[in-house]
Amino acid sequence: MDNRAIGIFDSGLGGLTCVAEMKRAAPAEDIIYFGDTARVPYGTRSRETILEYAAQDIAFAASKDVKVIIAACGTVSSALGDTIPDNGIPFFGVVHPAAQAAARATRNGMIGITGTPATIRSGAYERAIARISPDIRCIPTACPLFVPMVENGITDPDDVVVQSMVERYLEGIRSSGADTLILGCTHYPHLNEAIQRYMGDDVTLISSGAAAAMAAIEHLKANDGLAGRECGTVRCFTTDTPDMFRENAHRFIGGVDLTVEKVSVDTLSDLTRGRT
Amino acid sequence: MDNRAIGIFDSGLGGLTCVAEMKRAAPAEDIIYFGDTARVPYGTRSRETILEYAAQDIAFAASKDVKVIIAACGTVSSALGDTIPDNGIPFFGVVHPAAQAAARATRNGMIGITGTPATIRSGAYERAIARISPDIRCIPTACPLFVPMVENGITDPDDVVVQSMVERYLEGIRSSGADTLILGCTHYPHLNEAIQRYMGDDVTLISSGAAAAMAAIEHLKANDGLAGRECGTVRCFTTDTPDMFRENAHRFIGGVDLTVEKVSVDTLSDLTRGRT
Repeated sequence: MDNRAIGIFDSGLGGLTCVAEMKRAAPAEDIIYFGDTARVPYGTRSRETILEYAAQDIAFAASKDVKVIIAACGTVSSALGDTIPDNGIPFFGVVHPAAQAAARATRNGMIGITGTPATIRSGAYERAIARISPDIRCIPTACPLFVPMVENGITDPDDVVVQSMVERYLEGIRSSGADTLILGCTHYPHLNEAIQRYMGDDVTLISSGAAAAMAAIEHLKANDGLAGRECGTVRCFTTDTPDMFRENAHRFIGGVDLTVEKVSVDTLSDLTRGRT
Repeated sequence: MDNRAIGIFDSGLGGLTCVAEMKRAAPAEDIIYFGDTARVPYGTRSRETILEYAAQDIAFAASKDVKVIIAACGTVSSALGDTIPDNGIPFFGVVHPAAQAAARATRNGMIGITGTPATIRSGAYERAIARISPDIRCIPTACPLFVPMVENGITDPDDVVVQSMVERYLEGIRSSGADTLILGCTHYPHLNEAIQRYMGDDVTLISSGAAAAMAAIEHLKANDGLAGRECGTVRCFTTDTPDMFRENAHRFIGGVDLTVEKVSVDTLSDLTRGRT
């Protein structure tokens, strides 16, 4: 039994889909969530900048005495690839858990992969899937407008903008005949209904944030590391103001009690530069 | 005569519409452009974070021995309001020049104002217009998806997504009967054609970046501060990689020769904290 918190971070609020899954599957766990809302989005930046921000995010999570760290961000997970942070804390990205879930789900061996431009450019999901089963064919597609659409609440499956963007991004994947689709960015489950409707009911959608939450829980179970209390708390840290975080968070995780504190970008920068 | 450069900055690449106007109207000028591409966009962040980033951007521009600084960013200009940086360098935002141009252009005394959520929340354009002419009626509207659309090249006036977003944001302004529309964010001129088509040919569009460039040129003319050479250069600094800057800049300022150098976010942060 281990009552320390689980650390979950993301570029912004998308990772809250992973928190929601964690609350559902392991309600006893305390969660420390960090969202870099002063610098979101990461997915349209260079690999160099993403790795710099990711190092700061991980250093911050590690400073909070957590028992496991989840990068609930497709962009960070893809940029890191197989590089595991060197801080002694078990680490989960979304890429491997989602790749495993997709490889289990596909019946015809064709998997569509959606993600931010940086995620798709990295090829991380394809590499992870190739390692599990080299015969699976992957169809990757960058969906750069999905994150801003979700952040602005443009997710209604009856909205012509939603339908049109889903169609232009997913047309190639649908026509390929893929029977499984990885939502490789933790924002995308908010477009679930529109995507499912366009792809058809026979296509299995894999939420990368949910897959990462389940992988971390399995690890804790196997190592007798789950918490032993009734109900855990959610403590959030954000680089922009707590007010803005609260204002927008309900869209991602309505109905969950949480506290929000600010951590400045300067503090993060000092953390990785060994300054105090 | 003053051969020092003109400093122009923006959260990202939108301010290049101001650089293009400057190159057209005053080709002799050297320009130093700074785009904070590692932290773009600003317009969906809190006023607190915007002011922190703006202080760093201004400190960086001031460190380059420029004769004038232009905040070619509606979000920064609105957040600053009447606060002029205390560094002795003449400073121009986009709000006052655009407000003046719009007040001159309107015939029926009704001006539509578009901008990022932070710009519209600030009320800066309305205050500036009220000071020029208290009888003018303003119709402000935030257009949060315009920046990501422009950054992803979704600007074709025949695109159903462009048409639908323009309509949902500008419906209220069009039905108000406004005859003048301020494009209060330097990204928006890339949607010019779609916006003009929706608003009709009788409506005058005011590009805030172009208005700021003209105001700075007027100031330099009046103070014998224009450059005395044949043709100036454009030297760019960016917080993300120069490669990404170059890759995307052509969309904003095709055909202009420019050099690009990286300046790290850590350097900016140290500038305003007095660290080296």
